[in-house]
Amino acid sequence: MEGYVVSDAESMADRIDLRSDTVTLPGPAMRAAMADAVLGDDVYGEDPTVNALERLAAEMVGKEAAVLVPSGTMGNLAALLAHCQRGQRVILGSESHIYHYEAGGASALGGLVYHPLPNTADGRIDLDLLEVAATKVDDAHFAPPGVICLENTHNRCGGVVLTPDYLARVHALARAHDLPLHLDGARIFNAAIALGVPVTALTAHVDTVMFCLSKGLAAPIGSLVAGPASVIKRVRRVRKMLGGGMRQAGVIAAAGIVALNQMIDRLAVDHANARLLAAGLAELPGIQIDLNRVQTNIVRFTFVHPRLSVSEFLAALRTRGILMGSMGSTSIRAVTHYGIERSHIEHVIAVAAELLA
Amino acid sequence: MEGYVVSDAESMADRIDLRSDTVTLPGPAMRAAMADAVLGDDVYGEDPTVNALERLAAEMVGKEAAVLVPSGTMGNLAALLAHCQRGQRVILGSESHIYHYEAGGASALGGLVYHPLPNTADGRIDLDLLEVAATKVDDAHFAPPGVICLENTHNRCGGVVLTPDYLARVHALARAHDLPLHLDGARIFNAAIALGVPVTALTAHVDTVMFCLSKGLAAPIGSLVAGPASVIKRVRRVRKMLGGGMRQAGVIAAAGIVALNQMIDRLAVDHANARLLAAGLAELPGIQIDLNRVQTNIVRFTFVHPRLSVSEFLAALRTRGILMGSMGSTSIRAVTHYGIERSHIEHVIAVAAELLA
Amino acid sequence: MEGYVVSDAESMADRIDLRSDTVTLPGPAMRAAMADAVLGDDVYGEDPTVNALERLAAEMVGKEAAVLVPSGTMGNLAALLAHCQRGQRVILGSESHIYHYEAGGASALGGLVYHPLPNTADGRIDLDLLEVAATKVDDAHFAPPGVICLENTHNRCGGVVLTPDYLARVHALARAHDLPLHLDGARIFNAAIALGVPVTALTAHVDTVMFCLSKGLAAPIGSLVAGPASVIKRVRRVRKMLGGGMRQAGVIAAAGIVALNQMIDRLAVDHANARLLAAGLAELPGIQIDLNRVQTNIVRFTFVHPRLSVSEFLAALRTRGILMGSMGSTSIRAVTHYGIERSHIEHVIAVAAELLA
Amino acid sequence: MEGYVVSDAESMADRIDLRSDTVTLPGPAMRAAMADAVLGDDVYGEDPTVNALERLAAEMVGKEAAVLVPSGTMGNLAALLAHCQRGQRVILGSESHIYHYEAGGASALGGLVYHPLPNTADGRIDLDLLEVAATKVDDAHFAPPGVICLENTHNRCGGVVLTPDYLARVHALARAHDLPLHLDGARIFNAAIALGVPVTALTAHVDTVMFCLSKGLAAPIGSLVAGPASVIKRVRRVRKMLGGGMRQAGVIAAAGIVALNQMIDRLAVDHANARLLAAGLAELPGIQIDLNRVQTNIVRFTFVHPRLSVSEFLAALRTRGILMGSMGSTSIRAVTHYGIERSHIEHVIAVAAELLA
Repeated sequence: MEGYVVSDAESMADRIDLRSDTVTLPGPAMRAAMADAVLGDDVYGEDPTVNALERLAAEMVGKEAAVLVPSGTMGNLAALLAHCQRGQRVILGSESHIYHYEAGGASALGGLVYHPLPNTADGRIDLDLLEVAATKVDDAHFAPPGVICLENTHNRCGGVVLTPDYLARVHALARAHDLPLHLDGARIFNAAIALGVPVTALTAHVDTVMFCLSKGLAAPIGSLVAGPASVIKRVRRVRKMLGGGMRQAGVIAAAGIVALNQMIDRLAVDHANARLLAAGLAELPGIQIDLNRVQTNIVRFTFVHPRLSVSEFLAALRTRGILMGSMGSTSIRAVTHYGIERSHIEHVIAVAAELLA
Repeated sequence: MEGYVVSDAESMADRIDLRSDTVTLPGPAMRAAMADAVLGDDVYGEDPTVNALERLAAEMVGKEAAVLVPSGTMGNLAALLAHCQRGQRVILGSESHIYHYEAGGASALGGLVYHPLPNTADGRIDLDLLEVAATKVDDAHFAPPGVICLENTHNRCGGVVLTPDYLARVHALARAHDLPLHLDGARIFNAAIALGVPVTALTAHVDTVMFCLSKGLAAPIGSLVAGPASVIKRVRRVRKMLGGGMRQAGVIAAAGIVALNQMIDRLAVDHANARLLAAGLAELPGIQIDLNRVQTNIVRFTFVHPRLSVSEFLAALRTRGILMGSMGSTSIRAVTHYGIERSHIEHVIAVAAELLA
Repeated sequence: MEGYVVSDAESMADRIDLRSDTVTLPGPAMRAAMADAVLGDDVYGEDPTVNALERLAAEMVGKEAAVLVPSGTMGNLAALLAHCQRGQRVILGSESHIYHYEAGGASALGGLVYHPLPNTADGRIDLDLLEVAATKVDDAHFAPPGVICLENTHNRCGGVVLTPDYLARVHALARAHDLPLHLDGARIFNAAIALGVPVTALTAHVDTVMFCLSKGLAAPIGSLVAGPASVIKRVRRVRKMLGGGMRQAGVIAAAGIVALNQMIDRLAVDHANARLLAAGLAELPGIQIDLNRVQTNIVRFTFVHPRLSVSEFLAALRTRGILMGSMGSTSIRAVTHYGIERSHIEHVIAVAAELLA
Repeated sequence: MEGYVVSDAESMADRIDLRSDTVTLPGPAMRAAMADAVLGDDVYGEDPTVNALERLAAEMVGKEAAVLVPSGTMGNLAALLAHCQRGQRVILGSESHIYHYEAGGASALGGLVYHPLPNTADGRIDLDLLEVAATKVDDAHFAPPGVICLENTHNRCGGVVLTPDYLARVHALARAHDLPLHLDGARIFNAAIALGVPVTALTAHVDTVMFCLSKGLAAPIGSLVAGPASVIKRVRRVRKMLGGGMRQAGVIAAAGIVALNQMIDRLAVDHANARLLAAGLAELPGIQIDLNRVQTNIVRFTFVHPRLSVSEFLAALRTRGILMGSMGSTSIRAVTHYGIERSHIEHVIAVAAELLA
C-alpha cells in the first residue's frame, strides 16, 4: 500500500486562493479539537460532541433545536423537504444559490416546484411580487405555495446583506399566508458582523435557518439547520433518508464548536480586506466595482479590458499564484477569508495593476 | 459560551457495546492522521487526501474509480440513482438493509420501485426468482427492471457471507438481462476475511460496490462507492444533489486511509470473538443459535426464556454495562468489533449465564 | 383524408373474448345516452352529466363525494397520492393489481414506498402482518406507513371476494393506527352481487374506494374514486396534475350513469357463466380448478397437459375464435362478461374438450 | 335511482360563453360518430377507431406516430417525462401554459426542474437566453438541460403565433445542443390557419407536438402527442403510468376524427370573430387592446375603467348572459369558438358599450 502517501505537490498551500471562502483550512485549534474529540455514534444520538454543537448552534441563533448536516446544500434541501410536500412551490430569488447551484435537488428529489422571483441587485425580492406568489388559490391548475426562501448574505448578488427590517417584513408576509420562511444563511455571521447586530436580530425573523461551519468560519466540513423542534425533527428524518446521518460525527463537530466560539468575530478582518481589495481594484483600468455593494467578504466586479478577456486575466493571475473565479464573460468574483492577510491583498492589487497597465 | 465543554459523563467509554460495529471509535493512528491531514476543497476536486483515498479504494476493490460519501445509506442511494431512472425496479432481498433501513429513499427521492424477493436464511435470493424479476417485458403495465442488489455480508441474515461462486452466477444473470449488479458491501471486508479470499474475488462479480470505512474498520465517518468511471461520475452528480459534497473532507479521508491500510486484517479477531460469544451463549438456557450462520462478526440468536423477555434481558444486561440490540420480540443481535477484546466476551458470557441461570 | 374510415376487419365482433371483462362494448342504451348527453366543461365543474354521475356514484357507495377519472389506474394512483406524502409506505397485497400492473406509479411519480405483504389464496392479508406493518415507529431508518390497500374482488387471486367482516377488521386495525384504508374495488359490484349484500356493506368499511364503469358494467371509459369530501378534493387536485381533467366528460359519464343504473344486477349472469365454464373445464384432462375460488366472473386454472403447453393451447383456441389469457407458464385466466352468453360458454367447453382429448 | 336525470337548469346552453374555447360542445356529426363508433380495448391496442385517429393525427402533423391522451395537460406531461429524466431542466417560457397552469406536474411527479425564461409579448423566448440555458456544463452544481418547450399559439400572450422561421431557429439551436424541442400546440391549427400555412410548416420544426381535439376543434375530450415512433412509445408507457390508458376510447376518438376532418378550416371564422370583437371593444372607454396581437381566437385586453373594476364588469356581463375571464386585476380574456356566431359578437359589443358608457 505504499504510494498512498499524500504528496506535497498536491497541496494548495502556496497560492492566494480568492475563488471562495470554502477553501479555508482549519487552524491548529480546530485540528487539536478534532484529534481530541470525545466521540459516539450520532445515528444513535450518542455523540456528545455533536450534541454539544447542536445545542450551541441552536442557542446562538435563538432557535429551539439544530441538526448537523454534511453540507449547506443538504441543509437547504432537508429544510425544504421538511417544510413542503410533493407539488408545493418553493418561492425564492432568481439569483439564489438554492435555485442556481444545488442541482435542482428540491424538484429532482422532493417533487417541489421552484418559483423564482427576480432578485434586485441588493439581494431582495420585491414584496408585491412575494405577496402574489404567496397567495393560496383554490384552483387545481396551480401548484400551491409551500415555503419562502431568502439568502443572507446573498452570494450571486455580491455578498450583500439583508437587514433585520426587510427580513421582518417578509416574515410578516409569510405568516399572513401561513407559510414558513427559510433562510439560506450560509454566511449569516458575515451579515451580522457587517451590520454590527447580534445574529439573532436576523434569525429571529425566519422559521428555519441553514448556516455553514465551513466557508468563513473555516471548519473543514459541516452546516447546521436550526428552527422549531418539530421541524428539526422532520429535518433529521430527511437527513437520514438523504444519507446525511454520520457515525462519529464528533470529529467534525469538534471543529464546528471551535468555529462558532472563536471564528465569528474575525470575519470583520475579511470584510476589511474585501473593502481594501475592492478599493484597490476599482482604480485599475478595465475594472468597475460598485463599492456600496462590497458589504462583506465578497468582491464582485465587472471586467472589460481593452487587451485581456476575463479568462486571460484569470489565467495570468493564476500563473502568478493568485486565484479568482469567473461569473460569466464579463464578471469576476474574489472572496476574502481566513488565511488571507492584508499583505496578500496588497500583493494581489499590485499584481493586478501590473497586468492591466 | 461556557457549558459547551463535552462532559465525560456523556462518554460511552465504560460500556461493552455490542449493539453494532458502527459504534467503533477511531484509534490513535487515525486521530493522528486526521490531525495532520493535508487538506483542500474536495468540491473542486482538490483535497489531496480524498483523492488518495479514492484511488486507494478503487484499486483495492479492483474498480476504475471510487467516490467518498458521508454514509453507507448515501452510497447505496447514489449508486441506485446513478444506475436507474424514474420508474425502474430495484430488485433486492426482502431482508436487505436497503429495503428495511434506508427510509425508502430510492422510492421517496428517486422514483424507483422496490421489488423485494425473499431472502433465504443464508442471505441469498433464489436464482429462478431473480431470472423472472430481471426479465424485461415490453408491456406498459409493468415497471421495468433497473438494477439487481445483493448484500455481503448480510446484516439481517446474521452476517452471513455470499460466496464468489454465487456472486458470479448472479452477475452472469444480470449481464444476460443487461442489468447492472450493485453490492451493498458495507461489510465486504468481513466477507473476504471470513472466506480467506482477496476482496477482489468478491467485487469482481459486481458492477458497483458500496463499502464502509466506519463499522468494523473503525473510521469515524465515510463510505465509498466504487465501479466503472462512467458510473462513478454519475454517482458524483447524485452525491452533489443529495448534499454529500463535503469541503475539506480529507479530515475524514485521512482516517479512511488508515482504516484500509491497517484495520482489515484484524477483522479476523472480531470473527473469532463472535464465534466465542456464540458458542458460549448457545450453552445458556433460553438461547438458540445456529452456529453455522455465525460466519463473521454478527451473532444473531433466538431468545425465549421462561423468566425473562427479550427487553427484560437486554435491560438487565444494560444495567451491568453490556449493550445488545433487539431484532423483534424473540431475537437479539450482538456484534463484535474493534475495542471488544476476548476478555470482554468472556465477561459477557459470564454475566449472561448468571442472568439466565 | 379518405382512408381513415375504420374497416370492419379490425373489429373484434366475431370472437369469444374471455381475456378480460375490460373488452366489454357498450350496448344500445349506453350509445344512445352518450349521443344525447347534456354537456359542459367539467374542468370548470359545469358538466351536468358528470356532476350527476358523481352524485349518483357517491350515494351508491355511501360516501360524501366522488370524482370521475379516465381509468382505474388513475383512480388508485390519485387516491394514494391524496392519502400519502413523499416517503410514506403503501401497505398492500403482494398479488394486488396496484403492485403488479400499475407501472409502479405510486413510487415513480409520487415518491411512495410499496410495502407488499403476502396475499393468501383468498385475497386477504394476514392481520398480524398488517398490524406490524401499520405500526408507526419513531425511527428515521424506517419509511412511515401511509395507507393500507385491499382489493375486492381480487384479480390475481382469481376474482375471490373479501367479506364485510374481514374488511371491518382491517378497517378497525387501520383506524387504530390512524391510517386510511383504500379499496381497489375495480370489481366491487361483482363482490356485492356474489355475496348478495348491498355494496355499502363493503364500502362502509373503507375510507376511499375506486371502482370501474368499464369492466363488467360495460361502459367504455371511466372509473370513480369515492370517499370523504376533503379527501376527494385532494384527489381532484392530483387528477388535474396527472392530466385526468377532461372537458365535456359528460360523454363518458352518460354511459356511466347507464352502467350504474342498469348493469349491476346482470353481473349475476356473468358469475353463473363463470361457474358453468369452470365446472365444464374442470372435467377436462390437463386442467385443475379450485371451484371454491370461482366466486365471481373470473376463472383461473392450472394447465398442465401431456401434449399442449399453455401457449399452444391458447393459440389453438385463438384459431377457433376463442381468446383467454396466460398468467404464467402453467396458469390461464378466462373472464365472463356482458356479451358472453351461456351458449358461448357451452361452445368454449366443447372446443376445449376437443382440443384436450 | 330517480333524480339522476340531468336537469336542463344545469345546462349552459343560453349563455354566450367567451371564457375559453374549451367550452365548445360537439355538433351533430360528432355525436353521430360517437354513437356509431366501432370499438375495442385500446389498452390491448385493439380499438380500431383509436388506431385510425392516431394514424390520421400523425400523418396530418407529419410525424411517425401519435398517441391519444385524455387532456392537453397529460399530453405535455407525458412528453416531458418521455424526453427527460429525473433532475433535468425543462427550458420554457415564463408565461407558458405548462409553467403556469399544469400544477407543477413535471416537477411534482417527474422530478424535472422548470427553468423559465422570459417570454416576449409575442410569445417568443430570446435566442441568446435559450443558447445559454441549453448549454451543457460538466459541473455537478447545475441541473442539466433536458428539453426546450415552445407554445403555439401562445395562450397567456393573447393567442399570438410563432412563425415557421422562429421555430426553425429554435430547432436548430436545440439540435446543436442535442436537446429535443417539444411544442405545446394545444391550438396549433389556429396558428396554421392564421398564418395560412399547412400545419406541417410548423410541426416540421419540432420533435414532438401536443395538440388538442377539444378547444377550437370542438371534440369533447382528447389530445394527441405526435413525434418519432421511439419517443411516442415512451409516451405510451408514461401515459399508462399516469392512468391515461383508456379502454373503449374509440368513443372519444370518433369525435376526434370528425374534429380533424371537418373542424380545422372553420377556425378562420373564430379568428374573424375575434378581430371583430377586438375592434369593437377597442372603441369603448376603459378598454385598451393591441390589435396587432389579436392574431387568432383570443382577445386579451387591459381594462381600467373610471367606474367599474374588472370583477364588476365581468359580473355585469354575466348577469346579461355573457361570460369572459379575468387574467389579473386589470386584464380580461375573451375567446371565440365553435358555437359563437358573428351575431353573438355584435351583441356582446353592444352590451359592453352600454355597460361602459
